[in-house]
Amino acid sequence: MSSVPIAAEQDPGTTVTLLEPDGGSGLVRRTVLPGGLRVVTENIPGGRSAAFGISAATGSRDEDSAHAGSAHFLEHLLFKGTRTRSALEISALLDGVGADHNAYTTKEHTCYYAKVLDRDLPLAVDVVGDMVANSVLDEGEVETERGVILEEIAMYEDEPADLVDDVFAEHFFGDTPLGRPILGTTDSIGALARDRIAEQYRDAYVPSELIVTAAGSLEHDKVVEQVQAMFADQLAAAGEARPSRPRGPGEPVRTYGGTVVQPRETEQAHIILGSEGLTRADPRWHALRLLSAALGGGMSSRLFQEVREKRGLAYAVQAYHTAYADTGTFQIYAGCLPEKADEVIGVCRDELAKVAASGITSEELSRAKGQIQGAMVLGSEGTSARMGRLLSHELTRPRHSSIDEDLARYDAVTRDDVAAAAAELLARPRALAVIGPYEADREF
Amino acid sequence: MSSVPIAAEQDPGTTVTLLEPDGGSGLVRRTVLPGGLRVVTENIPGGRSAAFGISAATGSRDEDSAHAGSAHFLEHLLFKGTRTRSALEISALLDGVGADHNAYTTKEHTCYYAKVLDRDLPLAVDVVGDMVANSVLDEGEVETERGVILEEIAMYEDEPADLVDDVFAEHFFGDTPLGRPILGTTDSIGALARDRIAEQYRDAYVPSELIVTAAGSLEHDKVVEQVQAMFADQLAAAGEARPSRPRGPGEPVRTYGGTVVQPRETEQAHIILGSEGLTRADPRWHALRLLSAALGGGMSSRLFQEVREKRGLAYAVQAYHTAYADTGTFQIYAGCLPEKADEVIGVCRDELAKVAASGITSEELSRAKGQIQGAMVLGSEGTSARMGRLLSHELTRPRHSSIDEDLARYDAVTRDDVAAAAAELLARPRALAVIGPYEADREF
Repeated sequence: MSSVPIAAEQDPGTTVTLLEPDGGSGLVRRTVLPGGLRVVTENIPGGRSAAFGISAATGSRDEDSAHAGSAHFLEHLLFKGTRTRSALEISALLDGVGADHNAYTTKEHTCYYAKVLDRDLPLAVDVVGDMVANSVLDEGEVETERGVILEEIAMYEDEPADLVDDVFAEHFFGDTPLGRPILGTTDSIGALARDRIAEQYRDAYVPSELIVTAAGSLEHDKVVEQVQAMFADQLAAAGEARPSRPRGPGEPVRTYGGTVVQPRETEQAHIILGSEGLTRADPRWHALRLLSAALGGGMSSRLFQEVREKRGLAYAVQAYHTAYADTGTFQIYAGCLPEKADEVIGVCRDELAKVAASGITSEELSRAKGQIQGAMVLGSEGTSARMGRLLSHELTRPRHSSIDEDLARYDAVTRDDVAAAAAELLARPRALAVIGPYEADREF
Repeated sequence: MSSVPIAAEQDPGTTVTLLEPDGGSGLVRRTVLPGGLRVVTENIPGGRSAAFGISAATGSRDEDSAHAGSAHFLEHLLFKGTRTRSALEISALLDGVGADHNAYTTKEHTCYYAKVLDRDLPLAVDVVGDMVANSVLDEGEVETERGVILEEIAMYEDEPADLVDDVFAEHFFGDTPLGRPILGTTDSIGALARDRIAEQYRDAYVPSELIVTAAGSLEHDKVVEQVQAMFADQLAAAGEARPSRPRGPGEPVRTYGGTVVQPRETEQAHIILGSEGLTRADPRWHALRLLSAALGGGMSSRLFQEVREKRGLAYAVQAYHTAYADTGTFQIYAGCLPEKADEVIGVCRDELAKVAASGITSEELSRAKGQIQGAMVLGSEGTSARMGRLLSHELTRPRHSSIDEDLARYDAVTRDDVAAAAAELLARPRALAVIGPYEADREF
C-alpha cells in the first residue's frame, strides 16, 4: 500500500485503489482526470445514503487584509445561480429529494456538499457540480448577498461563546490571514468588488485545486464519468495540469502571548486559554489528541471534574486542538459568571501545570483511547463522516489509512508519549482571550 | 396490527410485537414488566452501534411556579452519583467506551441516553439504569450543581437566537407551566430545596412512568432481563401498577396575542412571529408539517426566497412547529439587523397572508413531500434517530408505525388539505416576540 502515490504524483488519466475493502473501510479509489481534477470515492455497500462533495483548496488564509472574507463570499455566491439554473432551481432540486445540502468555508479550504438517498446521487453530482463549474456571479446577486453576509457577521457577534474563538485567533496570530475571521469584517465585506471575487473563482476553482469526494453505496466509474462530463470545459482548458500538492508548512508562524479582553455586557465571561499546538503532519498528533481528551474531552476529563463537577464553576469547559498546515492551536474554552472568571482561569492553569509536570495516569490514557476510538467507530457509520475522512486525507496526508489503522495508531501511544507532548506543549507561552463585562485592561 | 394495545392496556408480564421487520423498520417489540415498566426495542441488524435510553414522563410543565426548573435540576443530579458509583465513575465508564451520552429535559419528558458500540450495550444499560434507579441526590452535590445550573441559565441568556423562544413562550402562554423556561429562573433555582427535588424523583421516576427504549443490533430479551434486574426493587414496590397512559389533552390552553419586546444591546433583532398550532394527535399534523416545510423549511422555501434570496434581509429565517399534548405553536424565526426588523416582519406577514388565502402550489407540495420523506429515510439510518422514534411513539401515539407507513401518510396529503390547514391556522391570532436594541413599548 505504501507505493500508492499522492494525487499530485498520480498519472493523469489513471485510477488507483487507495484502500481495499477491509479494516473498517470500504473500497477507496481515486481517479485523476486529464487536467488535474481528482475524484475519490468510498463504496459502502448496504446503506441507503450517499454523501457527495466538491472542495476547493482555498480558504480565508489565502486572502489579504483588504479582501478578508472573499472565499466565504464566493461560497455564498455559488448558490445564487449558474448558466442554466437560478438560485431557486438549485435549492428546489436538492430540497425536493430531502438532501442535507450546504457549504462551509474554513481557513484552508471550502466545501460544497449534499447527502442524499443513493438513488439521488446523480442529481447531487449534477447540481453541486453545476454550482461549482458554472456559476455566473451575477452583479445584482452580489449586492443582495452582501446584505446576507453582513447579517451573518451580526448573528455571529451575538454568539459570544463562538466569537471568542475569533478574538483569540486575532490576538494570537496578529494581523495575518490566520488571525482574521473567515467571514471577513463589515468593512471588508462592504468594500469587496464583484471582480475581485470573480478573480478568486477563476484562479482557485481550477481542476488542479478541486477535490471531488463521495461515499456510500456507489460505483466509482459512474461518479467519475459524470464529473468528467460536467467539468469538460475546465479540464480541456487546464491541459497538462496535475492535482495540486497538499498545503505544506511555509515560514514559521509567529504567535503572540498575553491577554486580550473584549468588553461586552454579556451574562457570562467567555474565556479561551490557548497556546501553539501541532501541525497536521506532526508525528505527535495522536498523543496530543489523547492528551486533549484526558484534559477536557468528556465529563470524566480533568477540567470537567475540577471546574464543573467539584466546584460548580461553569456549565461548559472543554479542551480542543485545531491543526493547520504549518501550525496549530491547543485551546481551553470555559464560560462562567464574570465574578468567577479568575477562579476558573486559576483552576485551568493549575491543571495545565500538573499535566505538564506529570502527564496523565494509565487509567486516563486508557479511557482517552476508548473514548476516541469508540467515537471514531460510531462516527464511521455515517456516509457524511466517511466523505469527510476522504477529504481530510486528500487535503493533509501522504496516504489514506483505514479506520482500523487509525485505531491502531492510538493503541500505540504510551503514557511517556503523552507526558512528553504535555511537557513541551503545555509549557509553551499562552494567550488568554476573554469576552465579558470588564475593562479592556483588566488582568486575569 | 391494529389490535396491538397501547402500553397501558398491555398485560404486565407479556411481550408483544409492535412492528414486523419490514417497511423500513426492524422488529419492534414491547415488554411490559410486572410493576409497569415498559421496554421497547428495535432490532436493526448489520450496524455496529446501539442507542439506549430511559425516559421519565415528567417535564417542566409538571412544575408550579415556585419550583420551576426542578425536572431539569433532577436530570443534572442523576449524573452525580448512585449508591455504588461516584459522578466520576459514571462518566468514566461511558467515556471509556466512546459513548455519546447525555440527557435532556423537555416540557413534557426527560431522557437519559447513551449511544455505544453494540458490544457495549450491556454497559450502557448498567450505567444509565443505575443513574435512574439508584441516585442518591447527595446534599453537597445539590449545592454544587445549583451553581452549574445558574451558569447554564447565564449561558443561555448569551444566546439570544435561542432565548427568544422562551421570551415568546412566556408571553404566548402567560404565567403557566408551558410558559415558563425549562431551566427555571435564577430565583427558582436559587431557592429549590433538595427535598422538593427528591420528592419529584420519588413520585415521577416510578416504573409506570418510565419508558426504556433501545435500537440497534440487539436481542430484546437480553435488554429486558437486564432492565428487570436493575429495577427489581422498584418493580416489586410498584405491585400491580401498569404503564401510565400518554399525556392527553386537558383543559383548552389559553394563549395571548400581541407583542413583547425584550430590550437588549444585541447586534441583530431576534424575532419570533407565532400562533397556536396543533396538538400531537391532530389529524392535520402531516398537512401542517408540509405547510411548514413549504413556508420556511429549506433554501427553496417561500420565506427563505422572499426574505433572504430576493432581499438579502436576513441570514437565518425559518418556520417550525412544536406540538404538545393539548396545544402547539407554529413559529417563524428570523434574525436581522435592528433597522431591518420592520421590513422582515412585514414580508413574513405578507407571505403568511398569501398562503392563508391561496395555500401552496402543486410544485411546492411535491417538493415539501420529497424534502420531508427524503430526510426521514436519511435520518432513519442512525440508531439514535430510531430510538427517538420508539420514544416518540410511546409518548404520543396510539400505535407504532413503520417508516414506510409514515412516508405514505405524507403521500396522502393533498393541496386542499394544506390549503385548509393554512386557511385556519395562519388566520389565528399571532404573537410577536423580539429581542433587540429597542424600547420595551416599540411597535412592529
